[in-house]
Amino acid sequence: MAALRSRLGGRLAYGGDYNPEQWPEEVWAEDVKMMREAGVNLVTVGVFSWTLLEPDPGHYTFDWLDRVMDLLADHDIAVDLATPTAAPPAWLPYEHPETRPLLADGTRLTFGSRQHYCSSSPIYRAKAAALVERLATRYATHPALALWHVNNEYPGVDGCHCDASAAHFRRWLADRYGDLDALNRAWGTSFWSQRYRAWAEITPPGKVLGAVNPAQRVDFRRFNGDAALECFTAERDLLRRITPAIPVTTNFMASYKFLDYWKWAAEEDVVALDAYPDARDPLGHVKAAMNYDLMRSLRAGRPWLLMESATGPVNSRRRNSARPPGQLRLRSHQAVARGADSVMFFQWRASAFGAEKYHSAMVPHAGADSRIWREVAALGSELRDLAEVGGTRVESEVAIVWDWPSWWALEEGGRPLADLAFHDQALAHYLPLWQANIAVDMVRPGADLSRYRLLVVPNLYLVDAEGAANITAFVEHGGHLVMSYFSGIVDENDQIILPGGHPGAFRDVLGVRIEEFNPLQDDESLTLRWSDDGSVSTASQWQDLMRTESAEALATFTDGMFGELPAVTRNTYGHGTATYIGTQLDTERLASVLTDAVATAGVRPVAQVPEGVEAVRRHAADGGSHLFLLNHTDAPITVELPTKTALHLPPQGVTILREEA
Amino acid sequence: MAALRSRLGGRLAYGGDYNPEQWPEEVWAEDVKMMREAGVNLVTVGVFSWTLLEPDPGHYTFDWLDRVMDLLADHDIAVDLATPTAAPPAWLPYEHPETRPLLADGTRLTFGSRQHYCSSSPIYRAKAAALVERLATRYATHPALALWHVNNEYPGVDGCHCDASAAHFRRWLADRYGDLDALNRAWGTSFWSQRYRAWAEITPPGKVLGAVNPAQRVDFRRFNGDAALECFTAERDLLRRITPAIPVTTNFMASYKFLDYWKWAAEEDVVALDAYPDARDPLGHVKAAMNYDLMRSLRAGRPWLLMESATGPVNSRRRNSARPPGQLRLRSHQAVARGADSVMFFQWRASAFGAEKYHSAMVPHAGADSRIWREVAALGSELRDLAEVGGTRVESEVAIVWDWPSWWALEEGGRPLADLAFHDQALAHYLPLWQANIAVDMVRPGADLSRYRLLVVPNLYLVDAEGAANITAFVEHGGHLVMSYFSGIVDENDQIILPGGHPGAFRDVLGVRIEEFNPLQDDESLTLRWSDDGSVSTASQWQDLMRTESAEALATFTDGMFGELPAVTRNTYGHGTATYIGTQLDTERLASVLTDAVATAGVRPVAQVPEGVEAVRRHAADGGSHLFLLNHTDAPITVELPTKTALHLPPQGVTILREEA
Amino acid sequence: MAALRSRLGGRLAYGGDYNPEQWPEEVWAEDVKMMREAGVNLVTVGVFSWTLLEPDPGHYTFDWLDRVMDLLADHDIAVDLATPTAAPPAWLPYEHPETRPLLADGTRLTFGSRQHYCSSSPIYRAKAAALVERLATRYATHPALALWHVNNEYPGVDGCHCDASAAHFRRWLADRYGDLDALNRAWGTSFWSQRYRAWAEITPPGKVLGAVNPAQRVDFRRFNGDAALECFTAERDLLRRITPAIPVTTNFMASYKFLDYWKWAAEEDVVALDAYPDARDPLGHVKAAMNYDLMRSLRAGRPWLLMESATGPVNSRRRNSARPPGQLRLRSHQAVARGADSVMFFQWRASAFGAEKYHSAMVPHAGADSRIWREVAALGSELRDLAEVGGTRVESEVAIVWDWPSWWALEEGGRPLADLAFHDQALAHYLPLWQANIAVDMVRPGADLSRYRLLVVPNLYLVDAEGAANITAFVEHGGHLVMSYFSGIVDENDQIILPGGHPGAFRDVLGVRIEEFNPLQDDESLTLRWSDDGSVSTASQWQDLMRTESAEALATFTDGMFGELPAVTRNTYGHGTATYIGTQLDTERLASVLTDAVATAGVRPVAQVPEGVEAVRRHAADGGSHLFLLNHTDAPITVELPTKTALHLPPQGVTILREEA
Repeated sequence: MAALRSRLGGRLAYGGDYNPEQWPEEVWAEDVKMMREAGVNLVTVGVFSWTLLEPDPGHYTFDWLDRVMDLLADHDIAVDLATPTAAPPAWLPYEHPETRPLLADGTRLTFGSRQHYCSSSPIYRAKAAALVERLATRYATHPALALWHVNNEYPGVDGCHCDASAAHFRRWLADRYGDLDALNRAWGTSFWSQRYRAWAEITPPGKVLGAVNPAQRVDFRRFNGDAALECFTAERDLLRRITPAIPVTTNFMASYKFLDYWKWAAEEDVVALDAYPDARDPLGHVKAAMNYDLMRSLRAGRPWLLMESATGPVNSRRRNSARPPGQLRLRSHQAVARGADSVMFFQWRASAFGAEKYHSAMVPHAGADSRIWREVAALGSELRDLAEVGGTRVESEVAIVWDWPSWWALEEGGRPLADLAFHDQALAHYLPLWQANIAVDMVRPGADLSRYRLLVVPNLYLVDAEGAANITAFVEHGGHLVMSYFSGIVDENDQIILPGGHPGAFRDVLGVRIEEFNPLQDDESLTLRWSDDGSVSTASQWQDLMRTESAEALATFTDGMFGELPAVTRNTYGHGTATYIGTQLDTERLASVLTDAVATAGVRPVAQVPEGVEAVRRHAADGGSHLFLLNHTDAPITVELPTKTALHLPPQGVTILREEA
Repeated sequence: MAALRSRLGGRLAYGGDYNPEQWPEEVWAEDVKMMREAGVNLVTVGVFSWTLLEPDPGHYTFDWLDRVMDLLADHDIAVDLATPTAAPPAWLPYEHPETRPLLADGTRLTFGSRQHYCSSSPIYRAKAAALVERLATRYATHPALALWHVNNEYPGVDGCHCDASAAHFRRWLADRYGDLDALNRAWGTSFWSQRYRAWAEITPPGKVLGAVNPAQRVDFRRFNGDAALECFTAERDLLRRITPAIPVTTNFMASYKFLDYWKWAAEEDVVALDAYPDARDPLGHVKAAMNYDLMRSLRAGRPWLLMESATGPVNSRRRNSARPPGQLRLRSHQAVARGADSVMFFQWRASAFGAEKYHSAMVPHAGADSRIWREVAALGSELRDLAEVGGTRVESEVAIVWDWPSWWALEEGGRPLADLAFHDQALAHYLPLWQANIAVDMVRPGADLSRYRLLVVPNLYLVDAEGAANITAFVEHGGHLVMSYFSGIVDENDQIILPGGHPGAFRDVLGVRIEEFNPLQDDESLTLRWSDDGSVSTASQWQDLMRTESAEALATFTDGMFGELPAVTRNTYGHGTATYIGTQLDTERLASVLTDAVATAGVRPVAQVPEGVEAVRRHAADGGSHLFLLNHTDAPITVELPTKTALHLPPQGVTILREEA
Repeated sequence: MAALRSRLGGRLAYGGDYNPEQWPEEVWAEDVKMMREAGVNLVTVGVFSWTLLEPDPGHYTFDWLDRVMDLLADHDIAVDLATPTAAPPAWLPYEHPETRPLLADGTRLTFGSRQHYCSSSPIYRAKAAALVERLATRYATHPALALWHVNNEYPGVDGCHCDASAAHFRRWLADRYGDLDALNRAWGTSFWSQRYRAWAEITPPGKVLGAVNPAQRVDFRRFNGDAALECFTAERDLLRRITPAIPVTTNFMASYKFLDYWKWAAEEDVVALDAYPDARDPLGHVKAAMNYDLMRSLRAGRPWLLMESATGPVNSRRRNSARPPGQLRLRSHQAVARGADSVMFFQWRASAFGAEKYHSAMVPHAGADSRIWREVAALGSELRDLAEVGGTRVESEVAIVWDWPSWWALEEGGRPLADLAFHDQALAHYLPLWQANIAVDMVRPGADLSRYRLLVVPNLYLVDAEGAANITAFVEHGGHLVMSYFSGIVDENDQIILPGGHPGAFRDVLGVRIEEFNPLQDDESLTLRWSDDGSVSTASQWQDLMRTESAEALATFTDGMFGELPAVTRNTYGHGTATYIGTQLDTERLASVLTDAVATAGVRPVAQVPEGVEAVRRHAADGGSHLFLLNHTDAPITVELPTKTALHLPPQGVTILREEA
């Protein structure tokens, strides 16, 4: 990132996906002129240009791209050059039909969209490598080249079931388990007579009557991600060899369930995010904040790139409403506040054709005489003045545990409560911290927790021994823990951690023992009585049938089929405390539990501001900082500053205060 | 039609599908006796008799059909003889499995229903032609033969994805585009690297991750229809060669999304409709009226045939309620009023077996001692007296634009508003005209509009240059236009009509410029203030962010995120006016806009009758006419006639007045 | 069963599925110790152990099972030994991919779950037989062996569509129909040109446009069941040959739509049931009672085995709530009351892995220090004292007709009312009889009805001539009949029983003639006036348009489109009466009609007890009996006994009274 920042003259990056291949060349001149007007200094080029660069198999031609790169260089616009490997040309599936993904139901995907390749295909990989090598070699020293953008939004939801994928899955399993006995143990194949006597017998999980072995499914998710990640690292290795000074990234899809971005981020030079929060979702800005914090956390707090966002509506929702006036500015600053060193959009100029022509752009169909263009130009101008924010850091003393394999395992079939969804739970725990303007990082269960005072663990269903020990040690050494129900139940192979009551991984640190899980019916709720003040609240969705051992009850169920039982507990363990929430609290009570824990941990908010104002601080190495104050409401708000001056934030307004060291 | 009318002795056709193959021959004598009783003069024979006529491949036998034809001729019942090509015998898919349609997901359809053939299959086509030729030759001079009924309810929803279909699709594309460069431009294949370098690389749109190229999908819809239409015209050509005097038709399925009936109607001698409005749908009779007007319009106002309808319930709905008493008569007359020269049913005698045995019939399971039979016999008697209506015409000065490719493109994925459905919109615009008893035709965008004073254009998303110019010229020359939002956005290839603001095709004639589309959320509504009287109304679903250029605002949005903006406008253009509706009006206001436009255009209702009474007039060549008055309510209604006499219509009652020239 | 009872020392069986292969051998000693503590005397072993017994194709090894059998024998725990044929090892689909079921959409099922075999596969059948023969031979004289448990929960929902299945289907059809003409007649193939000229042309019903021939679909359901049943009888024959003294069973899935358990029960020595009523369903206990009565009836009242049930939640529902305290005891006794000679669970020890690890067990994850274990142990102790109930009989004078082919045909597509579901209707008719504590059997239409006074026939859509004649004769000879609408409409081939009005099979005995069916719309209801007292009630969902012939109207529709029409009728026929219900009555009126019929038939309740108490009696051969009184409410109830003493039943309480002869 330092390289990129330096390349941009220390400025934040501003720009978007630039697809000149969709337009006659006479439009290009207007493009660069308008880019200059709007302060654009970085554009992503070539994301879907494979067919232009290799029109026939093995015949490469770069003339078109040369002209684009030269034009941009001439206008001092840096290029985030994409490897176009997300969309092979029509000749690949035509000449090699077996490169198309095969779904679990036996359907082969066809050409006509994008991402129509099997990650495990040797042919695809070879063709991709050959092109990337030529691309990198040709532009290695081009003055426009500033960043590599590998592929595009790697998918992971389905996985390929073709023979090549199955063979690859088996090799991956052999690497993971060493021998079949280990795999049979890990997958619990003594259940339903599923023992494998030969690697060749193993297949991707397909269609069955009933339910597939859940450990097999979780491993197939791991494998799918790794197969795609291999595609990424293969390209990255080529790029690093040829252009060692140019950073490499790929664009993530925020809290995307199907790829473990902890693993991905470790393989790239900078995290890049495509962020499309729903403009009309009342919690859209909170979800955005959570995603930004996640992106920042993926590489330990380093600045990241907002690689794609929308100037207006997307076209993938049922009702793609226009963006409210002012929101583009507000939300763009929000990303910067939470660690982005760029504001970029998909795309520069709205397409006239294709599947995404109703996706908004920096230059809309209506052209320059339009609200959107005026907002885009104004934002570019404003960001030019924020250069010194680049490279600064957000600092947090609170962390939320976010783990992909646990997410996958939690949402497999056959659980006590099918409705329990990780993302919703993570958001529910994030929301009160966001409302209180508490800075938060996300961490893996096994991460270095030494910088944190409070660790929040929403429904960490699956945890390996190392993760469990790490969390336990965190408390023992004085950390404060808040953990929600159905955590620590299974190990990395989705096997119940035995013996004794649940949660096997955390019984000691929590000081409780759970005999049974009691998911509540849709319309069922229970009453909680809180020990501190005798007040009551309502619980829903889940009831642990739990006994305290060393813990004390903070709240007790007072009704329901099982009578009085502890519901929320706190345990002192070593030098720290562990609070456990054995039910779904209402929004207010979950907030109280978390803000009490914040207070106990001695964590302070970023700033004392009225409700509706988001306060985030980026810290510079010199001890100075920028305080971002963002008014997400439709009303003006006055913020009393510590300096006793009052700051007036208009509706949807933003103010950025420069604080000296 | 004149030939058919003459063959029927000038009478309207009355009858139904007659499937004697389902019954022992001793029942046939009872059939013809009852047909005579009921006034049946035309029956459709042989729709599903391929297996009887060609029991083994290449072995033809017509004895059975000879006996049926002779029996009917003996009783002076004319025959609408069907080519049985909608349901090949079991031996075709058995001997040629590749003739079965292949779905996009790779599933081959099986035998056991009907329509189990690929329209592009050379084998199917050859077998169909061989049979049709023999059938036509054999009965060319048979006295019973009055009409050819080709195939049955050609389907179009899915399309076949087999190799033969794919090759046919490529030939069709080569015909349409000439060369690959033209196709690549039309499909916008520079988006997502989709350029084709060889025809062979192109496939039908199949399953993908994300979205298929929308132009490819719209072209595949066009192709599907054309492939089926080729099957029709191939049979028709044979029939015309052998029996040039016998008219040829096939039965349409009303406002069926998947076939462009404008193209089909041009290829046949008379339009035939299968109409199954829901007997219990409160708008069932209005939908029926709209479909009848569409059928009449398909061949420029010529009389059409109601080929299939139901005496009682169908069996395809979730709850197939019985038909209310009197509705059979009322709704049958409604079809005649709107231009039908026949009333026919599926089917003569209710089946004892098979997939449609609970579909009602002229002779129900309960036999002749039944309400249904009594209503059928009475209706037949009444229609005998309406002979002089045959051949007369409905005349209209208002037209609604109805275009299939626009329908297809509008409902593709990735649009601003996924819920926007053409049929619903067409009905919403038709309803107030129906309520006001304004006679209406449907037209294509490029049709001759010279006979119309008012043109209503509901959401014509896609329009080619010729259509746009035609509509513009209509206004310029003094016509009045009412157009709804999201019209004129893309050309025939689903490409945005650029440059500048929307709607590219109609900006001049409408005198407005739209910068952004703002689909509203489900529960969101806006307030409109109307310029003429300051009244307010509610808008929903859609908001154009629009500026007037030469137009004036008839109504203005007064709230919402974007403040005051024009919502409904009127532009004077040449000698005419163009009213534009940039939102979804409520039912009452849409009615006002349309009836105001009717008044401005100087169009008069068919008759001044109380609400709930439908008035339709058929005009004879001699200047005389028949006025149909239909009471669709459950209460008696008195109609004051211009002659100052009062006419009493009972609930569900019908009166037909003969008006002299 | 006598053999089993004797093997268990006259005691009821108590235990569950024991899967020691999931645990290290050191756990086994604890298992048998805890089994003894809980009074376990029968465990099901080996249900999923094929891979352990035949780890490689043709290599058998029984050491593991020897040790398990010996250990159990040593502790006097009898074994229900399973043939493990429900889950072939991974090597079977690997070496013989064609043994995997093929779905109608062309998808092959994969390995990774269970039941991944085609019932028609010769290879599967041969491998199963070879293993079963060795298993039976090895343990033929083992002291632990008490019962054979063949396969597990045979499925039937989808059916296999592979070539072997298709060929098998054709052989089955040839057996059923003898020649193709008969098949063509039975299937009504003159509809839609579906005639077959060769057996080879026939396929399983697959995917089609529109609807498959319904007779073909019903026959395919019959065939699917028979194909699975052949697998069962093949194993049974081997077992009977080798161990003639050991009874053979397989476990049924209660009112499972897809297998005709009348046919299955006739082939086994004792009926065994897996029962998982929803613990939180307000009607869960009534559905359980109905299922238990059905199981008892399948073999003419003989005691049956509760083979699987749950100590707590299952894991297949969306929200698997814990079981209320006391319910395990109450519901277990309910099964015994209704004829079970066992209480058994899936499974002994909760799995740590696999797809069912959250299914509750006798030993939960929490171990012996748990509520569940304490309830399990207490129940075992209590059942030990109920030994004398074993072998006794429930006696009924009322029967409900329950017929699988009618169920299948009723729920095919294209019916007048798609929502009409047999199971719901059977339950609606069962409920008031259960509430009145009337003992009820289920019977086939053709069963010996001589022991019954009242026959209840819910919506028997399909009935063959023998069944119709049998029901008619029942009434003629003095029986009382209550029949609901849409009964007797079609014969065994789904062909309308003609001529004349509906219901063709029962017009005479009912004394009515139905002209039309009028399914009501979702929100539509009609008013009924009852002849006896002039009261009114509400009808919904269905209206027969009916005339009485010899019957009298008990209730009359007073409104709706068709005016006054008979709705509920009674006919005197021979020495009996036939009540017909031509609409969907509300719950109270259906109860009145049924309890009136009970009274007319002179049938007495088991006992006069307050509402909410279930009373069931098991009669011993010596004339003595046990009266089970079960309080399903959450309140205490006092029952006045005929002996004038009062019995206090606590909430969820059970009392069993020993009554002398």
